[in-house]
Amino acid sequence: MEDITRGGQFLVKETKCENVFTPEDFNEEQIMMRDSVKEFVDKELWAHKDKFEKKDYAYTEQCMRNAGALGFLGVAVPEAYGGLGMGFVNTALVCDYISGATGSFSTAFGAHTGIGTMPITLYGTEEQKQKYVPKLASGEWFGSYCLTEPSAGSDANSGKTKAVLSADGKHYLISGQKMWISNAGFCNVMIVFARIEDDKNITGFIVEYDRENLNGITLGEEEHKLGIRASSTRQVFYNETKVPVENMLAGRGEGFKIAMNALNIGRIKLAAACLEAQRRTISGAVKYANERMQFNVPISSFGAIQAKIAEMATNCYVDESATYRAAGDIQNRIEAREAEGNSHQEAELKGVEEYAIECSILKVAVSEDVQHCTDEGIQIFGGMGFSEDTPMESAWRDARISRIYEGTNEINRMLSVGMLVKKAMKGHVDLLGPAMAVAEELMGIPSFDVPDYTELLAEEKEMVGKLKKAFLMVAGAAVQKFGPDLESHQQLLMAASDMLIEIYMAESAVLRTEKMAKKLGADKVADHIAMTQLYLYNAVDVVTQKGKEGVVSFAEGDEQRMMLMGLRRYTKYVNMPNVVKLREQIAAKVIAENNYCF
Amino acid sequence: MEDITRGGQFLVKETKCENVFTPEDFNEEQIMMRDSVKEFVDKELWAHKDKFEKKDYAYTEQCMRNAGALGFLGVAVPEAYGGLGMGFVNTALVCDYISGATGSFSTAFGAHTGIGTMPITLYGTEEQKQKYVPKLASGEWFGSYCLTEPSAGSDANSGKTKAVLSADGKHYLISGQKMWISNAGFCNVMIVFARIEDDKNITGFIVEYDRENLNGITLGEEEHKLGIRASSTRQVFYNETKVPVENMLAGRGEGFKIAMNALNIGRIKLAAACLEAQRRTISGAVKYANERMQFNVPISSFGAIQAKIAEMATNCYVDESATYRAAGDIQNRIEAREAEGNSHQEAELKGVEEYAIECSILKVAVSEDVQHCTDEGIQIFGGMGFSEDTPMESAWRDARISRIYEGTNEINRMLSVGMLVKKAMKGHVDLLGPAMAVAEELMGIPSFDVPDYTELLAEEKEMVGKLKKAFLMVAGAAVQKFGPDLESHQQLLMAASDMLIEIYMAESAVLRTEKMAKKLGADKVADHIAMTQLYLYNAVDVVTQKGKEGVVSFAEGDEQRMMLMGLRRYTKYVNMPNVVKLREQIAAKVIAENNYCF
Repeated sequence: MEDITRGGQFLVKETKCENVFTPEDFNEEQIMMRDSVKEFVDKELWAHKDKFEKKDYAYTEQCMRNAGALGFLGVAVPEAYGGLGMGFVNTALVCDYISGATGSFSTAFGAHTGIGTMPITLYGTEEQKQKYVPKLASGEWFGSYCLTEPSAGSDANSGKTKAVLSADGKHYLISGQKMWISNAGFCNVMIVFARIEDDKNITGFIVEYDRENLNGITLGEEEHKLGIRASSTRQVFYNETKVPVENMLAGRGEGFKIAMNALNIGRIKLAAACLEAQRRTISGAVKYANERMQFNVPISSFGAIQAKIAEMATNCYVDESATYRAAGDIQNRIEAREAEGNSHQEAELKGVEEYAIECSILKVAVSEDVQHCTDEGIQIFGGMGFSEDTPMESAWRDARISRIYEGTNEINRMLSVGMLVKKAMKGHVDLLGPAMAVAEELMGIPSFDVPDYTELLAEEKEMVGKLKKAFLMVAGAAVQKFGPDLESHQQLLMAASDMLIEIYMAESAVLRTEKMAKKLGADKVADHIAMTQLYLYNAVDVVTQKGKEGVVSFAEGDEQRMMLMGLRRYTKYVNMPNVVKLREQIAAKVIAENNYCF
Repeated sequence: MEDITRGGQFLVKETKCENVFTPEDFNEEQIMMRDSVKEFVDKELWAHKDKFEKKDYAYTEQCMRNAGALGFLGVAVPEAYGGLGMGFVNTALVCDYISGATGSFSTAFGAHTGIGTMPITLYGTEEQKQKYVPKLASGEWFGSYCLTEPSAGSDANSGKTKAVLSADGKHYLISGQKMWISNAGFCNVMIVFARIEDDKNITGFIVEYDRENLNGITLGEEEHKLGIRASSTRQVFYNETKVPVENMLAGRGEGFKIAMNALNIGRIKLAAACLEAQRRTISGAVKYANERMQFNVPISSFGAIQAKIAEMATNCYVDESATYRAAGDIQNRIEAREAEGNSHQEAELKGVEEYAIECSILKVAVSEDVQHCTDEGIQIFGGMGFSEDTPMESAWRDARISRIYEGTNEINRMLSVGMLVKKAMKGHVDLLGPAMAVAEELMGIPSFDVPDYTELLAEEKEMVGKLKKAFLMVAGAAVQKFGPDLESHQQLLMAASDMLIEIYMAESAVLRTEKMAKKLGADKVADHIAMTQLYLYNAVDVVTQKGKEGVVSFAEGDEQRMMLMGLRRYTKYVNMPNVVKLREQIAAKVIAENNYCF
């Protein structure tokens, strides 16, 4: 167990492939769960895709209710509160496969199970859990999460909604305006954040929404949005809404912490929820490319199309690798904490919190990949891709929101690096030692030994290690230069974050492929190796580019020269892979299978 | 005049800034034209944007009629046929400014004036021109362009629509199915491409569409599309539609040539039509960023937002530079040919044809920049960007089509390099000599002299020259390696095209800025210099990356090593610019002006 890479440590620790969870490790229960989710999606969502595009909010609600009847809403909920009490990997798995067909349902599902239910399971008192969670787990009731306000978006703690204690001390009266509230139209429970007096931090409340007794709650009209058209999204207005004092979540002023932790979990779930959309898009695109004839051949025979298919499949493979790796790590930490005597609630909370950096990384990387994937899907479909009659159109629109909600990708980029620096300051991750070691290594003469790359993925593993050094070099110098003022250098943080993201994603792919190769033999995973190499090649380019940008922004003269030289050293291949051939190989497999097949 | 860089020659010739046209060179007539177009757009389009989003096709038609009344439809049409007979720059200028408010109107305008009218002005007989062009120029009639079929998209010459000569030899009977026909719903004239017997190439026809006498023509329902919602887009079915033989355009089997040339012109016009959308998006985004407060400050004070604004403004500035440079070159060539005795018709045709490479480059670059710009626009607006109530949402959707129509960006990428290689083979552009010179230079020892960069933009100009060498090195070796089979190596063509695009765009920015600096003094154009440097820095990254990809795809061992070394040499800065500072500087200007202001 001590071999588990703790949250944020991936950068300074070599992770062994035996210790990562991969989609190939799904057990029988997980495979059954996946298959039953896929069946549900095919029958109830995919077959009625047009209803979602036509803003049939009632159909979304009905599907949510059916999902509840099948137990999908209670996967993460302990059995004591009517759920299935499954582990974190299963939670990610259901988020993944249930989300593939439509962003509308995916959003409703995510808002309900994630940020709508989790704050109660994580922070609720026994009474609160007993009262609300079983109904939410079964789909009798639905949840929503009311944090954002017109003037409080990224700055979530600045909300103006007020909670005033009643004269008799029995209720809080909540007044204010929330916006972009997913599931508002059909929810029964709202997690509402409001400020008591002039508290520095907001406070969370469980607010019931009963259509028979409005209690000062009114809803705005449905918002008309770019995508996720059948996800109910409304403003919610509170006018002295009476909430019993016992409905406060955690303590007074604890709301910001709740909100942030709910979002952490939401982020990895959102990443998972961007996987199946990629798989379905890739499969749809390759089927079209195999059927569509131009110049007397299927367009899948063209290199330009093959390159797209290969990149789409590769990103998806890597996204799966990283998402399930983090999910597995979180599950392990939860179990370890439980073994140490933590309650499940506490263990889950701390387990996810520990991996907040990875959750931010995943949110950014996977949401951008699904956007790219659907964009290429349209392009492969050509003119047809622009038509509402083909699935690429809505997939592209639906994907757009994932880069905005659960914290914009800009916020998450800055968080990922910011949290890492904080962890280092607190001594939770030793960045300083490794960063100094890199600085020292840079002063020395590089080895000119011809390295031994006979072991599988040896150069790739070495390269991931070098990319980590590149990050440590740049980030280390930046921290030294700017100290706590680093957070005001947002361009630098963004660049560092891009490096960090690529490192985590590429390493996850290497680990997954290595694990598979050890089990099946390298010859059985030739295409997985190709995807790993292709992704890493692209990652090296990003690290090079962003590293360079960082360096020139704060270093000059000799220091700049030395760091740029270091960057070259840490991004240099001994054997440059032929990425054109790699793409051909990967595409050939997907084209032959006529499906995403990894 | 001999100093003018001929089509495709930019790669091997040093262009002097005095010889390029820039937006700063607009004369009084052009400025008046621009302002009256902007007024029209503000009043009739921008103020009624919701009508376009609500699929008010009739409103699109009405606006087109009003544009006709104001003369905007006849800018490119010779006075003899009822137009304004203005030069190519004015044509580009009107396409540019009229297109900013909505992709729906822009598409209607482009389809009518470009591919709907131009084939007649370029290829029509005197009788055809007299009969049709005045009505099209005034907006009494509207035109459409019927090339694409369900099975003939990128492979445009493979259409199945037939034209059969009638027994009396007086008519062709056209039968077949066309799709994605812009303006189908309200056009009066269709440029229809059909095959006569088993001709290798299709033939063009002018087909009247009279709602009182359908003549075998039926329209499909309006297509429901991702964007450009109020652009009428339908299928058109022909069932033995009688077309007088004298309505054949150019000769039998000339249709494919007409189609391709119409698209050439269409491409640069489309690039122009993607400029004002960027300007309006940038201005909208910076206004929002200046107003939107988070963490007690306007979000425009954050580096992450500033970086976006700077990149958006820079791309737009560069896109303007390149589009008007090419438009000016084309206009010069048309005038030169007229001076040499060509008819205006012939001069225009040949003038544009000569710059087909540049037209493809522009189509790709500018359509991708407008997508990126609107995408960042959404991101700056955050959650609001996802709402149909803000202008970013439709701008992003509308922009998507520009990467598909007028030849997908993949087709245009391959065309750009393919045409260049053909020009070299034909001896129109001497690539071989310069490519050999580069190969020779690579064998020699690089100069270690400290270069003199005291002249304005000296390092930037040298860098552009080096990037050209990088292209010549990679493309030259590829041609040598693969010969005519190069066209089947699409990944390589795509990579080479990306290099080519960046070179043309970056050089255009350098030339524009240099010209401005020479006129106003360098201190007056500090921000333009910053944008030029920022763009070039990004271009160097692209050339490095794509060049590397190309090299490793076909070169091994020593050859690969030498070429990668060459690539490093040709992409190496002496003074690496601090792009973070550049972005801050550019953003500061746009934020202070609260507008795109270059």
